[in-house]
Amino acid sequence: MIIILKQNAPRAQIDAFCEELRGMGFSINDSQGAETHILGLIGDTKSIAESWVLANPLVETCRRVSEPYKKANRKFHPDDTVVQVGDVKIGGGNFAVMSGPCSVESEAQIVEVARRVQKAGASLLRGGAFKPRTSPYSFQGLRAEGLELMRHARAATGQPIVTELMNTEHLPLFEDVDMIQIGARNMQNFELLKAVGRQKKPVLLKRGLSATLEEFVMSAEYIMAEGNEQVVLCERGIRTFEKSMRNTLDISAVPMLKKMTHLPVIIDPSHAAGLSWMVEPLAKAAVAVGADGLMIEVHDNPAKALSDGAQSLDPDQFDALMAQLRPELEFFGKTLN
Amino acid sequence: MIIILKQNAPRAQIDAFCEELRGMGFSINDSQGAETHILGLIGDTKSIAESWVLANPLVETCRRVSEPYKKANRKFHPDDTVVQVGDVKIGGGNFAVMSGPCSVESEAQIVEVARRVQKAGASLLRGGAFKPRTSPYSFQGLRAEGLELMRHARAATGQPIVTELMNTEHLPLFEDVDMIQIGARNMQNFELLKAVGRQKKPVLLKRGLSATLEEFVMSAEYIMAEGNEQVVLCERGIRTFEKSMRNTLDISAVPMLKKMTHLPVIIDPSHAAGLSWMVEPLAKAAVAVGADGLMIEVHDNPAKALSDGAQSLDPDQFDALMAQLRPELEFFGKTLN
Amino acid sequence: MIIILKQNAPRAQIDAFCEELRGMGFSINDSQGAETHILGLIGDTKSIAESWVLANPLVETCRRVSEPYKKANRKFHPDDTVVQVGDVKIGGGNFAVMSGPCSVESEAQIVEVARRVQKAGASLLRGGAFKPRTSPYSFQGLRAEGLELMRHARAATGQPIVTELMNTEHLPLFEDVDMIQIGARNMQNFELLKAVGRQKKPVLLKRGLSATLEEFVMSAEYIMAEGNEQVVLCERGIRTFEKSMRNTLDISAVPMLKKMTHLPVIIDPSHAAGLSWMVEPLAKAAVAVGADGLMIEVHDNPAKALSDGAQSLDPDQFDALMAQLRPELEFFGKTLN
Amino acid sequence: MIIILKQNAPRAQIDAFCEELRGMGFSINDSQGAETHILGLIGDTKSIAESWVLANPLVETCRRVSEPYKKANRKFHPDDTVVQVGDVKIGGGNFAVMSGPCSVESEAQIVEVARRVQKAGASLLRGGAFKPRTSPYSFQGLRAEGLELMRHARAATGQPIVTELMNTEHLPLFEDVDMIQIGARNMQNFELLKAVGRQKKPVLLKRGLSATLEEFVMSAEYIMAEGNEQVVLCERGIRTFEKSMRNTLDISAVPMLKKMTHLPVIIDPSHAAGLSWMVEPLAKAAVAVGADGLMIEVHDNPAKALSDGAQSLDPDQFDALMAQLRPELEFFGKTLN
Repeated sequence: MIIILKQNAPRAQIDAFCEELRGMGFSINDSQGAETHILGLIGDTKSIAESWVLANPLVETCRRVSEPYKKANRKFHPDDTVVQVGDVKIGGGNFAVMSGPCSVESEAQIVEVARRVQKAGASLLRGGAFKPRTSPYSFQGLRAEGLELMRHARAATGQPIVTELMNTEHLPLFEDVDMIQIGARNMQNFELLKAVGRQKKPVLLKRGLSATLEEFVMSAEYIMAEGNEQVVLCERGIRTFEKSMRNTLDISAVPMLKKMTHLPVIIDPSHAAGLSWMVEPLAKAAVAVGADGLMIEVHDNPAKALSDGAQSLDPDQFDALMAQLRPELEFFGKTLN
Repeated sequence: MIIILKQNAPRAQIDAFCEELRGMGFSINDSQGAETHILGLIGDTKSIAESWVLANPLVETCRRVSEPYKKANRKFHPDDTVVQVGDVKIGGGNFAVMSGPCSVESEAQIVEVARRVQKAGASLLRGGAFKPRTSPYSFQGLRAEGLELMRHARAATGQPIVTELMNTEHLPLFEDVDMIQIGARNMQNFELLKAVGRQKKPVLLKRGLSATLEEFVMSAEYIMAEGNEQVVLCERGIRTFEKSMRNTLDISAVPMLKKMTHLPVIIDPSHAAGLSWMVEPLAKAAVAVGADGLMIEVHDNPAKALSDGAQSLDPDQFDALMAQLRPELEFFGKTLN
Repeated sequence: MIIILKQNAPRAQIDAFCEELRGMGFSINDSQGAETHILGLIGDTKSIAESWVLANPLVETCRRVSEPYKKANRKFHPDDTVVQVGDVKIGGGNFAVMSGPCSVESEAQIVEVARRVQKAGASLLRGGAFKPRTSPYSFQGLRAEGLELMRHARAATGQPIVTELMNTEHLPLFEDVDMIQIGARNMQNFELLKAVGRQKKPVLLKRGLSATLEEFVMSAEYIMAEGNEQVVLCERGIRTFEKSMRNTLDISAVPMLKKMTHLPVIIDPSHAAGLSWMVEPLAKAAVAVGADGLMIEVHDNPAKALSDGAQSLDPDQFDALMAQLRPELEFFGKTLN
Repeated sequence: MIIILKQNAPRAQIDAFCEELRGMGFSINDSQGAETHILGLIGDTKSIAESWVLANPLVETCRRVSEPYKKANRKFHPDDTVVQVGDVKIGGGNFAVMSGPCSVESEAQIVEVARRVQKAGASLLRGGAFKPRTSPYSFQGLRAEGLELMRHARAATGQPIVTELMNTEHLPLFEDVDMIQIGARNMQNFELLKAVGRQKKPVLLKRGLSATLEEFVMSAEYIMAEGNEQVVLCERGIRTFEKSMRNTLDISAVPMLKKMTHLPVIIDPSHAAGLSWMVEPLAKAAVAVGADGLMIEVHDNPAKALSDGAQSLDPDQFDALMAQLRPELEFFGKTLN
C-alpha cells in the first residue's frame, strides 16, 4: 500500500505513525521528495482498511498496490479452478448450461421443464423455491415445498439442481441441494456468505446490480475464507440508465474476472435484459467472450409464469437456442458438459 | 394499471386475457382506438407484477397508475407518522439526532462518546456491534459483546440506543435494543425485513446504494405489511460516478419520500460523503430541506477508529456542529428532541 | 400518446384541454373509468414534448406509445440500411473494420499504420486530427495538418478515411474526408448534428457516455431529418461504477439498436475498456452478437502514443486479431469488406 | 505524479524510461522496495496524460498527487472569486438569483416575466433563445429573434441578461448579451469552451449530466486557460437511477467545488428535479449548503410553456419563494444582490 502524506505533516507525528505501522507488522519504505512524501507499506496489507489510513490527519491519500483478495486471486493460483456439481464440470474449458423456471410452480411444471432442458443439452436444473421479490404482495415462491419439487425433478432426470438460499436459517432445508445460489440482492449479505462458506456444497454467486468487480470478488473471498473454494461467479446484468431493457449485461466482466481470479464465470442473459428475444444474441456473445457457462430461464408456458415470464424461453425456443450454441461452442473449443 | 396491447393482437386471445383478468377480481375498461388498444384495470393491482403482464405476448407495455405500496402511502395516511423511541419523537416537526461511533470498540470509548453526544444535544446513541465490511479480513465488530457495551452506555446516560441487525438469527440478542437498524446492503434482504416486521421495536431502514425511492419504500412496505408501522427512512448517499467523495447525498429524496409516504425521513451526512469536513454543510442542508433528523458519526479519536474514521467527527467538532444546528432548527420551526 | 389525468381534474378544464389538443390536429380517445381517466392521442405525436404535457396541472402522467423517431425507425423501414463509404459497405451482412491511431502524429506514422492495417484486412483508415481532450494542457491533435496527413495515407493505400469533426466551422476542411465521425462528447451537440445532416458524406455517430439508446437514436434522427440518411451507429462503452476498466461495453446495445432502427451498428472495443489486452475478447463478442463492424485503435508504437496508448494494439497484435476474426466472421455468415 | 512499476520490469528499460521523463523536464524520486517500485515525478505534471503513462508496458498504474487544473485551483488562489455581471456580484458572500423562462416565446411574455422576477428580487434575467432539444421535431427556440426580445426585456427593467450559446458560429449574435451560458450537453464541447474563453463576457458553465466534478472543473479550466477567468459554475442535477424525478441534485457538489476551486457555485433546482413543487425545498437547501446563487425557471403560464413547463414556477409562486429565501439568506449571512 502506498500512503501519500500531506505536504505540511509534522515530522514527529509522521514518526509516531510509522512506529504504529511497524507495530502492526509492516516494513516501511519512506520516500520524501521536494513535493511529495510517500510511505510504501511492505507486508500483508489485506487486513488494513483504506478508511483507517485515510482517517489519519497526516494522510493525503492512499492506494493499494496489491489486491485486497487472496484466495480468489489468480496471482496465487494461476490455473483455472474447475467446479464440480455432481458429474458436471464448470470451468477450465468445460461449459455448463443451467436452465429451468424462475419459480418452481408445480410438480408437473418442474418435471416437464427438467425433461425438456435435459434433452436439449442443459447440464443443471435451476428453479426458484425461495423468491426475493420487490413487493411483499408478489408471489414469494413455494419455499420448502418448492425444494421438494426440485428433488422430484432431479429424481426424474438425474440432473443436479441449483436453487437460491435467502437466509441462514433455511440452510438445513438445503442439505439435499447440489449447488446453492446466492442472489444478486444478497451479494453483500455477509452473514449468509460466511454460512455458505462453512458448508461443503458448491456456491453460485450472482453479482449485485451495482457492485464493482472488486466488490464481487471480495464477496467470493468471504465464502472462500471460511473454507469453501467451490465458487462460480455469475454476471447477470448491472443497473444503468437504459430504459429499454431491465439491466445491462456487462460482457467485459468475463475477461476481467478471469484476469483477477481463477474461478469459473458464467453469464445469465435472461435476467440481464429481461427480454426473451434477446437471450440468443447475448448467449452467443457470452460464448465468444470466453464464459464458462450460461444460466437461462425456461418455462413451459412463459405467458402464465408466476414470475419473470417476459424473459423466459419456452422449451422449443430453448431447443433452437441450444442448436445454435453447440456448433459455436465447438468453434471456440469448449466442451459442453 | 394501464395495459397497452400490441396493434395486431387477435381479438379471441384478447377476450381470453380479459376473462383471466376478471377472474382475478379486476374490472376492465377496454378502450380501442385506431392506433392503440388499451385495457384499464380497475381494482387492487398491487398484487400483480408488471413482469407477469409483460410476459403475455399480446402486451406491448404496461404502466401502473396507482403506487404498488399501500401501508406506507401518504394517500391513505395523510398525516405525518411520528415514531417514538423511548422518550424521543421523530417526525411531525420533531427532529432527532442519532450520534455515536461507527463501531463500538470498548466500554470506555462508548460511554465517553455517549456522554459527550448527549451533552451536545443528541437524542439517541448509535453504535455498530455487528459490522458489514467489504473485506472478510477487516474488523467485523465486537458483535454480542458490542451490544452489551451499548447497554452499558445507555445505563450511563439514559439515551435510547440504535444498532444494526444483519441476520435473523441474531434477533434474540437485540431484545434489549431500542431501535433496530437495517443497513443499506440489507435493504432488499427480504427475510430480514419480514423478521423485523414481526417484532415490535421501531426500525431505522437505510436506503440501498443504488436503490430507487420506490424500491426503498417497497422495503418499508415489507416491514409494515408484517404489522410493524414504526419505520424511519434514512437517506445515506447513493453511488454515482463521482470520485472525490464516497457517495453522493440525494437531498431531493427528503421532499420526494415525504410526498410518497407518511414516514419520517432522516439524513446520514457522515456516510454520504465519507468526509468529516463535509458533515457540517450537508447537515445544514438536511435541516433546510425538511429532514426529520440526522445520523452522525462521532468517535473519541477518529484517527484511531477501527472503521470509517475518515468520516467521523470528534466530540469537540460535534459540539460545534450542534451549536450551529440549534438556531437553524429554530429558524425552520423544528423541535430538537 | 397516453395521457393519464388526475382523479379530481374538473370536467370543464379537461374539455378545454381536449379542445386544445384537437386544435393541434389530434383525435382523442377519451376513456374514463372509476379510478382512472385516460386520454389516448391519435395522430403524429412526435412533435409533442412529454414535458409540455406534464406541465398541464390536469395531467398525472403520460406515456408515448409510438417512438419519437421516424426516419431511423425500423417500423417504417424494415430492411437493413447499407452505408457505403468509397467501395466499402457497412451493414446488411457486410462487416467493416476501421483501424488506425487515436491521433495522427506524423506522415511516417500514419502511412505505416495505414499500410499495416490494410494488409491485415481493415476496410477504413481511422485517425484523429482534431482531438477532444479532457485537459486543455493535453495534446489537441495536429488539426488541419492531421487531415492533410490522413489524405497522404489514403493516397498510399486507397483506403477511405474516417476522422472526427468537433465544430461546424471546421466543416470546409473536411470536404475531402470520406466519412465524418461525431464523437461521444458531441452526441448531443445539436448544431453539429444538423450541420452534418445538411452535407452528403456518411456519418459515424458515437454514443454518448451516459446516453440512453433512445437519446442515441434521436441524435441520428437529427442528422437524418436534415436529409442525410447515411448514418452508422457506434457503441463505444458507457460510464458505470466499474473502476478496473475505463468504460463498460454495452453489448446489448447491438440487438436493441437493430430492433429500434435499420441503421448499421458497430462496436469500438478499444475505447470501451481502454485496455489493449481486452480488445480481442470484446471484438469476438461483437461479431457473435451481430455487430456490423469494429473500430479498433492501432498504433505503430503504443508506448509512445501521444494519446490513448494503453488501449492501442500494435500492428502485429492487430494481425493476430484479424487472423482470429476472419474464421469467426465466416462462421457467423458475415462478409468482411 | 506517482508511477508504480510492474514487479518484473527490466532495469535497463526502467532507466530508459526515467531518461525520457527527465528529458521532459521532470525530476524523479526513485524508490524501490521489496515488493513495489515507485517513481515520484517532480515538476509540473499537468501536461502529462495518465493514459500516456499507462501505455508504457513497464507501468502497473499511476496516480496524480497534484490536481490537473491550475487556474481554477483554490490552492493557488485562496480567495473567493467574485464574478460581476453588470452591477450584480456573484460569489464571496454575494448571492444572485437568475430567473426567467426556459424559452423566450414572445416580447409580451419575456417583458412581463422580467418585470415580475425583478420585482420579486431576482438579479439577472435568464431566457433561452437557442434551445438544445432531444428531438429535432421539438421547438428549437426563437434563436436570433429570441436574443432580440431578451434585449427588449433588459431595456424595460435594466436587469443584465444571461442566455445559452450552442455554437461558435453564433458568437457574433451574443455581443450584446451580459453573461453567456454553456449548457450541460456542451460541457465538453471543447471548441466552444475555447471560444468563450477568448472573449470577455462572464460565462455560466453548467455541469454535464454525468460529469465528475474534476471533469467539470477541467472544462472551466479550458475557458480560463484562454484568458477569461470570469466563470460561474452551476450544478443542475445529475443522471441517476431515480425515476420519480428528472435528475438528482448533487448538493455536495457545492462544498466540494468550493474546496477545489475559487469560483462561485450556483444551483439550478428547476432542472435538477424537473418538478415545480420541489424548487422550494431544494432552493432552501442550496442556501443552507453555501451556494452563491440560484437559477430558477419562471414562466407567466407554465401550462402553456413551449418547453419545460412542468418545472417552471409562475410569478406568484416565485414571489412566495423569494419571501422565504430572503430571511434564510439573512440567517446565513449572505447578501442578496
